[in-house]
Amino acid sequence: MSAAKTAITPTRHEDFPEWYQQVIKAADLAENSETRGCMVIKPWGYGIWELIQKQLDVRFKETGHQNAYFPLLIPLSYLEKEAEHAEGFATECAVVTHHRLEAVKDPVTGKTKMIPSGELAEPYVIRPTSETIIGAAFARWVQSYRDLPLLINQWANVMRWEMRPRLFLRTAEFLWQEGHTAHENKEEAIVETEMIHRLYEAFARDHLAIPVVPGEKTENERFPGADMTLTIEAMVQDKKAIQAGTSHYLGQNFSKAQNISFTSREGEKEFAHTTSWGVSTRLIGTLIMAHSDDDGLVLPPRVATQQVVIIPVTPKDDSKEAVLAACDALAEKLRKKTSYHGDAIRVHVDKRDVSGKKWEWVKKGAPIRVEIGPRDIESRKVCVQRRDRGANEKDFMDKEEFLQTVPNLLQDIHDTLLARAQEFRDANITACTSLEEFHSHWANDNPGWLATPWAGSPEEEDELSKKHKITIRCMPIKDAGLPKDLLSAATGACFLTGKQSSPVAIWGRSY
Amino acid sequence: MSAAKTAITPTRHEDFPEWYQQVIKAADLAENSETRGCMVIKPWGYGIWELIQKQLDVRFKETGHQNAYFPLLIPLSYLEKEAEHAEGFATECAVVTHHRLEAVKDPVTGKTKMIPSGELAEPYVIRPTSETIIGAAFARWVQSYRDLPLLINQWANVMRWEMRPRLFLRTAEFLWQEGHTAHENKEEAIVETEMIHRLYEAFARDHLAIPVVPGEKTENERFPGADMTLTIEAMVQDKKAIQAGTSHYLGQNFSKAQNISFTSREGEKEFAHTTSWGVSTRLIGTLIMAHSDDDGLVLPPRVATQQVVIIPVTPKDDSKEAVLAACDALAEKLRKKTSYHGDAIRVHVDKRDVSGKKWEWVKKGAPIRVEIGPRDIESRKVCVQRRDRGANEKDFMDKEEFLQTVPNLLQDIHDTLLARAQEFRDANITACTSLEEFHSHWANDNPGWLATPWAGSPEEEDELSKKHKITIRCMPIKDAGLPKDLLSAATGACFLTGKQSSPVAIWGRSY
Repeated sequence: MSAAKTAITPTRHEDFPEWYQQVIKAADLAENSETRGCMVIKPWGYGIWELIQKQLDVRFKETGHQNAYFPLLIPLSYLEKEAEHAEGFATECAVVTHHRLEAVKDPVTGKTKMIPSGELAEPYVIRPTSETIIGAAFARWVQSYRDLPLLINQWANVMRWEMRPRLFLRTAEFLWQEGHTAHENKEEAIVETEMIHRLYEAFARDHLAIPVVPGEKTENERFPGADMTLTIEAMVQDKKAIQAGTSHYLGQNFSKAQNISFTSREGEKEFAHTTSWGVSTRLIGTLIMAHSDDDGLVLPPRVATQQVVIIPVTPKDDSKEAVLAACDALAEKLRKKTSYHGDAIRVHVDKRDVSGKKWEWVKKGAPIRVEIGPRDIESRKVCVQRRDRGANEKDFMDKEEFLQTVPNLLQDIHDTLLARAQEFRDANITACTSLEEFHSHWANDNPGWLATPWAGSPEEEDELSKKHKITIRCMPIKDAGLPKDLLSAATGACFLTGKQSSPVAIWGRSY
Repeated sequence: MSAAKTAITPTRHEDFPEWYQQVIKAADLAENSETRGCMVIKPWGYGIWELIQKQLDVRFKETGHQNAYFPLLIPLSYLEKEAEHAEGFATECAVVTHHRLEAVKDPVTGKTKMIPSGELAEPYVIRPTSETIIGAAFARWVQSYRDLPLLINQWANVMRWEMRPRLFLRTAEFLWQEGHTAHENKEEAIVETEMIHRLYEAFARDHLAIPVVPGEKTENERFPGADMTLTIEAMVQDKKAIQAGTSHYLGQNFSKAQNISFTSREGEKEFAHTTSWGVSTRLIGTLIMAHSDDDGLVLPPRVATQQVVIIPVTPKDDSKEAVLAACDALAEKLRKKTSYHGDAIRVHVDKRDVSGKKWEWVKKGAPIRVEIGPRDIESRKVCVQRRDRGANEKDFMDKEEFLQTVPNLLQDIHDTLLARAQEFRDANITACTSLEEFHSHWANDNPGWLATPWAGSPEEEDELSKKHKITIRCMPIKDAGLPKDLLSAATGACFLTGKQSSPVAIWGRSY
């Protein structure tokens, strides 16, 4: 059987990691830079991030959060305050030790070279996350229970010196938002942590068409310094997991280390209960791996910089002007329409005089492509192609009909991507209640996830994880949206310890 | 004569720099952090930046630019490539030399301490500006004239180790946008540089109500590595100048250093002509110093997070509910109205149960305050106060009339601030054609600017600058908007060299 020619080589099936790199390259999303592990996010990739930012920001503000900005550099002494936290990030911190450069002449070559100069008395760390520096500000701002809750978000770059960087998924520098909140008591802090967790889940589903599994991390997998870490876990097309967003209840660990204290309603001095939560440019890597195909990127409509791309077909010079005018007229009408998600439809007319435009937009993942040629002007038809269908499937539609149905078409593309991803996910999570099956499962190629009843200790979890290069992705929350039959098959006696009525754990390989 | 009590101590007249700090504190805009020279931008201050970002971003996109993102860290070897550029920033670079931390036990105290570890073979510099790292990407992206013009913008944080930091105006880390473009030839690059220069001027005038003077920097004051630097210069209330935004034509200096070359229309290898341009959180410092008064911050309406603040007056419990409902109803109606600048009006109802709310909003600079009390409900009146007028000036308006006039009121506040700033500026620029007058002028307190005919050499400029702690702020462009009589009085023979028909230079002290 000869394979159909695809726009991306290799295919997902042939070599998934290399396919991922090639999709990014073909869609012109990002590239590696000469700064170790750091990427350049190109306009088509950054446009996705801008939309994610804008849409999430609205949700954060609706839920009472305000944006602020805190220093990039953290004094080393701040990081040391919370021991577990410091230890967790110690091996991946970029450290600033000098504050100027000095020109020196190389005695051998005679060339002038710049060397670090002006050593700092106390080095700084480039924020890997900002709990410590934001906590120091909170300690100043919070005096009384009247100052609580304090609900702050920051859009920023952070840096973690990753040993094996991969574009979007794991880069030394990445862009993210980090929410930081302080509350009077544990209950309110937990409500916040869970509210954001569900907000992230809904965002992944409704904006990125990714059916994540919401759950709690085990102690082994928690954020360094947290009492509870909630996560949304996405399954991508090689059946690996991606941790796509986390929400942490930090207890009083940071508030005690940094003295975020307040006078309570009863007049007592108390320490605040804090939370932190974040999503990053990793979401872009996740959506690429979740939806794209062997012809390139497939963008969920809501985060597509251009939702409809109109390509004029101009075989003859004498009809060119009329075709371009028809394309512009259609674009103008489309821009006045509201999409299913309430924003204006984003339309681009690609008038460049180059060949291969159609395939360029296939590879860039534009949700809808429209071609208009000389004959279509008379017939008032347009040729419509959907990115969620085969690259050569066409639908000739009456122009007016197309205008009317575009919002629904976009919605339908979103729904199709979501349903497809959900079907794939559910087909690739297997319930497992026996240790023997558990061990043998991971010998498969692309083994998918296991759902098991689990009551083992952190040490037992660690042993199994190391043996099979897996982790517990999460303990799904009650209303996680997993198939009922899967959950009931995965509940019962722990497959390792035999303990009755154990909760369900999801195991998998991950990025 | 006893002075009226003001909300800010000291007043502008008593101590301008300290007044500035106190305005920032009273409005809760920002504060110093323990990271040397770095500030925390608090929500009320960050909100201004968000609006500046959003509004500028629309203008950049309208003029064909796309956003992208480049690494925070610049390899030292990149910076070295353009010698003048490297030298210009060498004394203020934060340098990353290590990529991990190691825990060591202090032999004396027995305590565990973190020390830098994992020394890098090549250190990195935290970007003070990104010409070099973006240039390296441009060198990869540009191959043919068809790839030009390349029009890129980045929203980012940058770092310059300032010796005398001052909130917003001069901080070690600041937020900005930096545009970077590459063109086929000098003409197109100059058109871009000038277009952005006028865009900045219009933005300062129409969004920030600041009547800047657009002009060209002299060679002494150019950006390191530029062939031409255009600037917008603002005069603030102590008559000093603030460089509020610059636009540089970089010639082929960076393209030659970094090999941004392309095959021209004629098939020849040529080096691109590049530009760069930026504005930063410094704009916030500028607008504070330009408009605020002895009662605190005065916000130009377009960048006010809340344009109308409604304060319920609830002296009695039995009418409280009705007053709050009336406030909410008014807010809802206002939110449906469009302001003079095309956006929805931003309204806040301050329902907090604390005293002193009115003065809080005076100090925070909300353009319009509205009070509604029990009696106003029956009379259908509202008590309206404008921030550009005295804090106790009131206008009782019919509620319907108020609703109708709010857009005009906001426009009028903007126009008033702009006219006031322009009148102040024009009254404080003096034409000067004699060397004697020039020398004596700078002995005055808060001397204001001088406009002179100037044809001196860079060395002569440097000597005068050092002697009086002044600089040439700019050589105003033709259509700079300065008073005609000032310009004609300041044209003629150079006050130093006597050279005839010399162009006008603006001299001043600056931040």
